[in-house]
Amino acid sequence: MTWVPGAQGSPYGVHNLPYGVFRQGDRPARIGVRIGDLLLDLDAAEAAGLVLAGGALRAPTLNPFLALGRPQWSAVRSRITHLLTDAGHRAAVEPLLLPLAEVELVMPFEVGDYVDFYSSEHHATNVGRIFRPDDEPLLPNWRHLPIGYHGRAGTVVVSDTPVIRPSGQRATPDGPVFGPSTRLDIEAEVGFVVGVPSAPGAPVPVDRFADHVFGIVLVNDWSARDLQAWEYRPLGPFLAKSFATSVSPWVVPLDALADAWVPAPEQNPPVLPYLRDVPHLGLDLRLEVDWNGTVVSRPPFAGMYWTAAQQLAHLTVNGASVRTGDLYASGTISGPDRSETGSFLELTWGGAEPVGLDAGVKRTFLEDGDTVTISATAPGPDGITVGLGEVRGTIVPAGAPPR
Amino acid sequence: MTWVPGAQGSPYGVHNLPYGVFRQGDRPARIGVRIGDLLLDLDAAEAAGLVLAGGALRAPTLNPFLALGRPQWSAVRSRITHLLTDAGHRAAVEPLLLPLAEVELVMPFEVGDYVDFYSSEHHATNVGRIFRPDDEPLLPNWRHLPIGYHGRAGTVVVSDTPVIRPSGQRATPDGPVFGPSTRLDIEAEVGFVVGVPSAPGAPVPVDRFADHVFGIVLVNDWSARDLQAWEYRPLGPFLAKSFATSVSPWVVPLDALADAWVPAPEQNPPVLPYLRDVPHLGLDLRLEVDWNGTVVSRPPFAGMYWTAAQQLAHLTVNGASVRTGDLYASGTISGPDRSETGSFLELTWGGAEPVGLDAGVKRTFLEDGDTVTISATAPGPDGITVGLGEVRGTIVPAGAPPR
Repeated sequence: MTWVPGAQGSPYGVHNLPYGVFRQGDRPARIGVRIGDLLLDLDAAEAAGLVLAGGALRAPTLNPFLALGRPQWSAVRSRITHLLTDAGHRAAVEPLLLPLAEVELVMPFEVGDYVDFYSSEHHATNVGRIFRPDDEPLLPNWRHLPIGYHGRAGTVVVSDTPVIRPSGQRATPDGPVFGPSTRLDIEAEVGFVVGVPSAPGAPVPVDRFADHVFGIVLVNDWSARDLQAWEYRPLGPFLAKSFATSVSPWVVPLDALADAWVPAPEQNPPVLPYLRDVPHLGLDLRLEVDWNGTVVSRPPFAGMYWTAAQQLAHLTVNGASVRTGDLYASGTISGPDRSETGSFLELTWGGAEPVGLDAGVKRTFLEDGDTVTISATAPGPDGITVGLGEVRGTIVPAGAPPR
Repeated sequence: MTWVPGAQGSPYGVHNLPYGVFRQGDRPARIGVRIGDLLLDLDAAEAAGLVLAGGALRAPTLNPFLALGRPQWSAVRSRITHLLTDAGHRAAVEPLLLPLAEVELVMPFEVGDYVDFYSSEHHATNVGRIFRPDDEPLLPNWRHLPIGYHGRAGTVVVSDTPVIRPSGQRATPDGPVFGPSTRLDIEAEVGFVVGVPSAPGAPVPVDRFADHVFGIVLVNDWSARDLQAWEYRPLGPFLAKSFATSVSPWVVPLDALADAWVPAPEQNPPVLPYLRDVPHLGLDLRLEVDWNGTVVSRPPFAGMYWTAAQQLAHLTVNGASVRTGDLYASGTISGPDRSETGSFLELTWGGAEPVGLDAGVKRTFLEDGDTVTISATAPGPDGITVGLGEVRGTIVPAGAPPR
């Protein structure tokens, strides 16, 4: 039971406590934790000795805190919970609470490497059907390993950063032409944030996932389908994805998701031993994709074929190391139903079946000025939900000056 | 004419002056510049006021110096040249020269994003013939844009870092199996190091290449061909490349390569306007691949189809920004002749034609204990060559503990 006004029963109660980084006026960026519609200034809290993290909370990014590891993450979480629930601390803590409306949320961590997986069977099948209609939709490797690739870390941006429409080459019957993308799309994903590094040559087994991963963010992996279709063979997507990837400002700790674990879909054929996670659990995260005010899709994360523990085990099984701040995303989340697809490519079946928004507006792909907001919740304790915040972006025309 | 003993006429004379980062005993890493077989301690030189870079030379990586930009790069280079050629400075400077044999060279810069291109026509054609024998070797997009993809920045390592043989899945007639790679290969490449960042949404035109790129390194993009063949569809190489990418310890400034520019191969069909670099110039860098003491190949960089200026223009044309420390590599460098190929895949034609090393030893792919050294030179002023150093790695068995 928290003493913070308005926080009890909220999706951002003491059962959640997501971390972020904020600016207030001209002051340097600092770390905060969300409680209700307020934010506890952890820089000030550590300076005052209310919470101790060896100075890791007095940094302009979460990276030093992420590097501390699970025992310290848990200790800090316990202490914050105590401060926010024990009325005896109210006098000292309340002055360090700021209304969210008075701060600007910035990129919460410095991204090391960014990897994007492709782990929804429904998404991979849909894309296969749309792009390669004459072939088996799933390639032979898909059920044997979590397919993934490296994306561009330097263009991962926080929610509300404007997304400039990318330009590039697309194929036409008369050869390639250059111009602004005409098939700009979203990909609704969940991202996993690595805290504790691994050493070169030392794979992270599936059962050590929680030793390394601190928590999750929501991800919108903006994608230019016309650029992608022309460029992706044989080395994969490049400019179609590298212009911007948006993440939610709140990193929700795995500790807040204890009630969200559910059995993941059975894997058949059986996976190789290094990918066997027993129990094979997914997270029951429920996403919602809002396009200019209309909810167009509700992608269910629980149905992902490959789990985050398997993805990390695969990513490192060749000896590749992970660093603090590495981000790996699930891949587009799509359920079996059209209304559960995580991309507009699928929602409009390659642009062939426009979707209706409010006021009779029809859309296939993104137009300039469009805003997409992806939000999500998870089941929490005692029937309360866990809010995962949202990742939002508005498309600005190609060639507009950067913000 | 330099007063430094042994440096006059050396490939590392005052016409070259590559930058690196070194350790000496227990002291923190610091920046140096190579002259002959010595290294000028630039940390000490800036501390003594002999060269001024606003403190950028007093850092443990080159990144702050790389961020300064071309006018400052040129000013520092001029000043160092003056110090090393004007005998009046000898008394002050000579105590700051260290024998290379007494220092350990470490990773010279912190890598932002790592991108790998695929810009040798001979290489792309050879790979197409080996992997897709029934199709046209070059895919339809290849002559229209410089194909590239993102690699793993966190596993870029400096020369002489042991390379642990990666494990992973490979296809067999009975389905995929897991184990150490059986087709471990090299890729001889040249890497371009970005100094000055670009803004989101602001592409770098072909003619602004030298405003952003500071210099070059040699790159060995170690590749596990068996893993690659199984995993790469549809999103490109992932574990096959992510375990290690080695770079030479010396970053050779573009200023040292003024005599190395040569016309690049004519491009037909004509490229789109954003890729038109006039004049269309490549660098006459001559690489040498040494396998356990035998030179097996001499890849010629001058024949690369896509230039570094075109690669940077393409990489940013969608609005993606570059950061200080970004590294983009040319892709495997192969000439028309088998003895000019930059990978063992090509040299042994998919492993079908073993190559002879010293003492009657035959090889197809890398065995544990093998050492590969890639070195290079460029033409310099007055018939002197410019040494580009070397990138070396020795294969250690899979599962060995990390160093």
